[in-house]
Amino acid sequence: MAVDSSAATRSYRTRPLEQRDRPVIAELVRHVGNFSNEEIDTALELVDEWLADGEPSDYICWIIEDEEGVRGYVCIGPTPLTEGTFDLYWIAVDPSAQGRGYGQALTRLAEEEARTRGGRLLLIETASHETYAATIRFYERAGYELVSRIPDFYKEGDDKLTFAKRIS
Amino acid sequence: MAVDSSAATRSYRTRPLEQRDRPVIAELVRHVGNFSNEEIDTALELVDEWLADGEPSDYICWIIEDEEGVRGYVCIGPTPLTEGTFDLYWIAVDPSAQGRGYGQALTRLAEEEARTRGGRLLLIETASHETYAATIRFYERAGYELVSRIPDFYKEGDDKLTFAKRIS
Repeated sequence: MAVDSSAATRSYRTRPLEQRDRPVIAELVRHVGNFSNEEIDTALELVDEWLADGEPSDYICWIIEDEEGVRGYVCIGPTPLTEGTFDLYWIAVDPSAQGRGYGQALTRLAEEEARTRGGRLLLIETASHETYAATIRFYERAGYELVSRIPDFYKEGDDKLTFAKRIS
Repeated sequence: MAVDSSAATRSYRTRPLEQRDRPVIAELVRHVGNFSNEEIDTALELVDEWLADGEPSDYICWIIEDEEGVRGYVCIGPTPLTEGTFDLYWIAVDPSAQGRGYGQALTRLAEEEARTRGGRLLLIETASHETYAATIRFYERAGYELVSRIPDFYKEGDDKLTFAKRIS
């Protein structure tokens, strides 16, 4: 699938994440955002489970690339003990490629992949200390609604926010 | 530890769940509440991980017993990616032993065990279709507050409720 991004005339492509992408993705999660080592390890565990098991795994990971290479990725998976709910576990775009609509493209891709597998609800959990106004605007533009805030979940002063979108 | 329950003069004892308790616990989760096979499997996976790995496992399981044998159990564990938050994953009391304060005793035990391990917040997630008024009263009496409701989380019409209590 090669389509024009909506934010620019640059063309990009999305495809399932492959073994050869792993070094780029590892670099990406280490440098994008402000993740702790534990969070980085968790992100890469999802990637490795997807690479080892493919579709029967609990995770589905896709990348977005343009003429400069892999620029971002997204991981989703069915939420345990639910019927038709999926979690968007991880989404990241290389800082040098931001502002091109790649984040929104990955979000739409996540929704399509979840819907294909029977998904009706897609959830995104984030830490309030990482959720700047720009992040909230990003999710709202993509049609997500803040449905839950658990105070002091991650640590004192750092709440868990959950955004949700009906995708069926 | 042998103490009197607050609801009756019956005496009970709590201790870590051991291998010999597993058949009773398996029977208990099959017959208490209205759990799906997937939920029962999940409950027993937690028990088995605790029995296999003990304290280094992600789960901590204790039982409550009286002169008639094991009457209930509770499983807690540290919530991944948090500092000091614990989940109360499972709590069950044999229907024939209900009304004796064993549920409240297991809840207090869960709080003590979490606190001992650095816990400051204890969360209980439940499905709204299983959360009858009596359950909500039970949690409220134990000092828990409903902090989140995610509509249609488990399936259409079945929300995820999260109760929380500060334990530090």
